[in-house]
Amino acid sequence: MKKEFAVIGLGRFGGSICKELSKEGWDVLAIDLDPDKVNEFKDIASHAVIADTTDEKVLKELGIRNIDHVIVAIGDNIQSSILTTLMLKELGIKKITVKAQNDYHEKVLNKIGADHVVHPERDMGKRIAHSIISSNVLDYLELSDDHSVVEVKAGLKMSGNSLVDLDIRAKYGCNVVAIKRGREVIVSPMATEEIVDGDILIVIGADKDISRFEKNLVVDDE
Amino acid sequence: MKKEFAVIGLGRFGGSICKELSKEGWDVLAIDLDPDKVNEFKDIASHAVIADTTDEKVLKELGIRNIDHVIVAIGDNIQSSILTTLMLKELGIKKITVKAQNDYHEKVLNKIGADHVVHPERDMGKRIAHSIISSNVLDYLELSDDHSVVEVKAGLKMSGNSLVDLDIRAKYGCNVVAIKRGREVIVSPMATEEIVDGDILIVIGADKDISRFEKNLVVDDE
Ligand SMILES: Nc1ncnc2c1ncn2[C@@H]1O[C@H](COP(=O)(O)OP(=O)(O)OP(=O)(O)O)[C@@H](O)[C@H]1O
Ligand SMILES: Nc1ncnc2c1ncn2[C@@H]1O[C@H](COP(=O)(O)OP(=O)(O)OP(=O)(O)O)[C@@H](O)[C@H]1O
Ligand SMILES: [Ca+2]
Ligand SMILES: [Ca+2]
Ligand SMILES: [Ca+2]
Ligand SMILES: [Ca+2]
Repeated sequence: MKKEFAVIGLGRFGGSICKELSKEGWDVLAIDLDPDKVNEFKDIASHAVIADTTDEKVLKELGIRNIDHVIVAIGDNIQSSILTTLMLKELGIKKITVKAQNDYHEKVLNKIGADHVVHPERDMGKRIAHSIISSNVLDYLELSDDHSVVEVKAGLKMSGNSLVDLDIRAKYGCNVVAIKRGREVIVSPMATEEIVDGDILIVIGADKDISRFEKNLVVDDE
Repeated sequence: MKKEFAVIGLGRFGGSICKELSKEGWDVLAIDLDPDKVNEFKDIASHAVIADTTDEKVLKELGIRNIDHVIVAIGDNIQSSILTTLMLKELGIKKITVKAQNDYHEKVLNKIGADHVVHPERDMGKRIAHSIISSNVLDYLELSDDHSVVEVKAGLKMSGNSLVDLDIRAKYGCNVVAIKRGREVIVSPMATEEIVDGDILIVIGADKDISRFEKNLVVDDE
């Protein structure tokens, strides 16, 4: 049986989840208090309804019990977010993901049984801060406190050299696991692969090794 | 000379950037209209001031000209965001990153010379949607439209098998580039490395190969 989703709160965050799930072919029930928001999603989601989810009767009438995974993306009104989550839990929803505004909000959500609490603005702030600090790092995936996968622009110093010439693994302790070249992605490049101007390297390793690699081999183009 | 940053708007997104830059040892001038917000950041940022950045005189008095990179994280008030960006540009700020609320806002920001426009809620919504669809994917880095690095929980079927036993590369065309085991990260694991219950695998490859790998080897624990 195909999973069904509901998104409550069609702000920028909830709206984006609703769009992405729908785009990937999933059934989404989109809910908001605001008729304009609901109208915006009527051709995107499988169903879009105007409703106040802090009203238990309304939730029941929506048939929310049949939904497998509900995402609560109500923002500024913390009380409504908590009340909605509490009632979803009481109605027996198996998976509830909730957007939190702050640590206090998160604590309450965990106490009342939210399965997953997310902090979109905070997490994205961290990501952007990292890309600001190191303007060669285009994106990254944090593996642990001290290990990451980063996407860096290859420095001019690298062009024309092969990975074995640069001896990245031995010198810096990190590994080039892929090279992006235009629209192509070369996964696990051979040691003899030559770096070309404009290449983007996907590097995995300890943060301190990656920093050293960046400082020595990646030219800042500012 | 050490770079200096300013963050205008200390909401969740701007506040998170300010905290992260400060944590990493950078000088940050934190600015908000709201005295409570400014107070919250007085021990975090190097300077925290109450100011309305739509007032050119105020911006000049703050010495904003000396700042290398300004992040405008004013949210709901699109007009203030645009006006602030416009004046920063006129004052000659070299790098301006601005949070956009929607596509229209982004267009205007690009026209008036913002260097980088970001959509934190939208981007995080996409990420969360992906982790919701595939509940084994804990996090991911999109390399291109059809290649990614993903963090997946190792399935029970894998436990006790080495990477060479599972023959992941030959069977699924993707590579395990690291294993997270508790607080440890094993980068470029050897082929003889045995998967242990609770391991998290970092896998790189084409999206279609990763999906096949997931379907066959990663057990959904629901
Ligand atoms: N009780 C409720 N029932 C249904 N929808 C609600 C309820 N309360 C708020 N909402 C809706 O939730 C949406 C998100 O709320 P809000 O705009 O306050 O959050 P935000 O965190 O600023 O959003 P963003 O994701 O854009 O940052 C709004 O469209 C709002 O109408
Ligand atoms: N003209 C201005 N000058 C300085 N700060 C401002 C100005 N206008 C708004 N701000 C501040 O910007 C901050 C962010 O604005 P707002 O809360 O509307 O954005 P948001 O997108 O909902 O934030 P979040 O990042 O929490 O999602 C607020 O703290 C607000 O006081
Ligand atoms: Ca808001
Ligand atoms: Ca927001
Ligand atoms: Ca880190
Ligand atoms: Ca993709």
